[in-house]
Amino acid sequence: MNITTFDRAMMQRCLELARQALGKTAPNPLVGSVIVKNGEIIGEGYHPQAGQPHAEVFALRDAGENAKNAIAYVSLEPCNHYGRTPPCTEALIRAGITKVVVGMVDPNPLVAGKGIERLRQAGIEVIVGVEEQDCRQLNEAFIHRILYQRPFGILKYAMTLDGKIATQTGHSAWVTGPASRHLVHETRAICDAVIVGGNTVRLDNPNLTSHGVGDAAGTLRDRNPLRVVMSRSLDLPITANLWQTAIAPTVVFTQFGSDKIIQERLRDQGVEMIELENLTPDLVMQKLYERGLSTVLWECGGILSARAIQDKCVQKVMAFIAPKIIGGGQGFSPVGDLGLERMTEALMLTDITIRSIESDILIEGYLQN
Amino acid sequence: MNITTFDRAMMQRCLELARQALGKTAPNPLVGSVIVKNGEIIGEGYHPQAGQPHAEVFALRDAGENAKNAIAYVSLEPCNHYGRTPPCTEALIRAGITKVVVGMVDPNPLVAGKGIERLRQAGIEVIVGVEEQDCRQLNEAFIHRILYQRPFGILKYAMTLDGKIATQTGHSAWVTGPASRHLVHETRAICDAVIVGGNTVRLDNPNLTSHGVGDAAGTLRDRNPLRVVMSRSLDLPITANLWQTAIAPTVVFTQFGSDKIIQERLRDQGVEMIELENLTPDLVMQKLYERGLSTVLWECGGILSARAIQDKCVQKVMAFIAPKIIGGGQGFSPVGDLGLERMTEALMLTDITIRSIESDILIEGYLQN
Repeated sequence: MNITTFDRAMMQRCLELARQALGKTAPNPLVGSVIVKNGEIIGEGYHPQAGQPHAEVFALRDAGENAKNAIAYVSLEPCNHYGRTPPCTEALIRAGITKVVVGMVDPNPLVAGKGIERLRQAGIEVIVGVEEQDCRQLNEAFIHRILYQRPFGILKYAMTLDGKIATQTGHSAWVTGPASRHLVHETRAICDAVIVGGNTVRLDNPNLTSHGVGDAAGTLRDRNPLRVVMSRSLDLPITANLWQTAIAPTVVFTQFGSDKIIQERLRDQGVEMIELENLTPDLVMQKLYERGLSTVLWECGGILSARAIQDKCVQKVMAFIAPKIIGGGQGFSPVGDLGLERMTEALMLTDITIRSIESDILIEGYLQN
Repeated sequence: MNITTFDRAMMQRCLELARQALGKTAPNPLVGSVIVKNGEIIGEGYHPQAGQPHAEVFALRDAGENAKNAIAYVSLEPCNHYGRTPPCTEALIRAGITKVVVGMVDPNPLVAGKGIERLRQAGIEVIVGVEEQDCRQLNEAFIHRILYQRPFGILKYAMTLDGKIATQTGHSAWVTGPASRHLVHETRAICDAVIVGGNTVRLDNPNLTSHGVGDAAGTLRDRNPLRVVMSRSLDLPITANLWQTAIAPTVVFTQFGSDKIIQERLRDQGVEMIELENLTPDLVMQKLYERGLSTVLWECGGILSARAIQDKCVQKVMAFIAPKIIGGGQGFSPVGDLGLERMTEALMLTDITIRSIESDILIEGYLQN
């Protein structure tokens, strides 16, 4: 097997196309495809959202009759089963494609390799694993969904260089600068939900919207995530930015037996109320999975973030660090008690990246499941 | 005035020479000098320690008779007064130097410019401000000493990505990896003192030595800082690594009226005891200034570090961040209560630098006085 620079460039183009649908495809993956003939792209496509055709179908349509004897590049293994759309393998075979270059195999162990097998049976040459790491990263949320039947959780927090997310009195506007906050708004635009606890609603009265910034590519100007509040007590203000449901939908998860009057008053404002027997991060994530969500951003305080980590609802950490010292002995720490007594028990992050965001520093890494 | 690339290269050589005495010159500055003739270095020198001749004198000695009609480069303005050594200006004049290139003016407002003036009076061409920023940085501690009559304070701490310097039970071995700890040992080798509070002695039983690593250049293998403990109560263990005074000297600052028996037992082990009327970081720094110390490393816990910051005893922050999450709602934060209630009151750091130290991240910055 011989992977050329050209192959890699074509796969990167597939990823670029796939990214145009960032935040829109859940529960489906982000996929891009290009059709190439005589070293030139003759068709391009990506999967725009669930229920719509897959990337290969758009790319084949774009290429038209020309697709005969051409090469198809696709960032994810073509499907070989009837779902909401017919199998892409058949579309590729029918179009007369002679070679298929695949970024990564389908992460679903039940179907992995089946599409590739079908193509090879039909006499098509198949190359697998081109720019695989980038393909996997783009779909890290989808892969997690498939493997664990839960959305991919990102814990985001902003702290001072001395590790505080607020002053001792709870004041936190603002820890980081405008560029970091802009990046958070962009991140919300490509996430399917944002979760906070009741404390954050009471203290910060956040909007949790993308504030119209859209994603980095500027294609998601009006996209907002589902806003989720976890509150066992329902000790919540009757007026709050999150109850402005004309801007973005809001769901409050609470426990059976919580205050019916407050439930009613929030419902009156268009807030969806869901009562659970036991309000845990994992159960909330399960409900969000069942709704088809792929990526969930935890923007909560330390107590809830610790519970989310303990429930294995956090796969990635985005820590914004502002170059300032606020001081404070207690409370308002990004992660509360995890019950760890020895430093050697600390949860290690892997695949660390460090970026300067104007004067702030963003450190990102992954927690192992 | 025309500063050439050659001038800058020669000044960098002066700084390189000056650095050979890192950690050894307090209360004096680090200074390097080269003598150049026909575009070639004919003499080099640096100031090795207080009481020894200055850099220019060593460089002139190295050049010998050849110094006549040569150019002298020196990273700090030559002195023009009789101290422990005769003025360097006279030595340069007597040697027949025709041009002097100076990195930075003397930071002492009482003598600044006097050396340059004397040289110009003697008909020598003087250029000032070559690689000035690097010259200032190398002597940031000396400059601070001169301007504020206090040693330069560096607050160093190692925390997890969620802002903890220990677990909830106080366990902290180790937050960061071997490369970061090695860098801390190197930093101790070039500092004049390291300060901790009684809590750190009780919890961590540290050595606070350079562990024989020396500085990055490897010239300070056996150099250890003065180890300083601040303890009002003197509630200290009778056996501790810090009382092993054969390895490095230790001073305990305490308050009048503290336990005489413990004082006696520590003195018996060679520990120096100093009683102050009021044990404050500033008063301790004043005493260390009077001893001629230039750079002091605060390696204390959050309570003492907050008091040191409030007393303006911290000019620079070295924050090592390990990519791990330990959790914990309270305590063991790098900086305790500063009495700041609004996030907008946070103390901003300037001139931020970010470095990867193996898997850890080192963020450094300066607090404004």
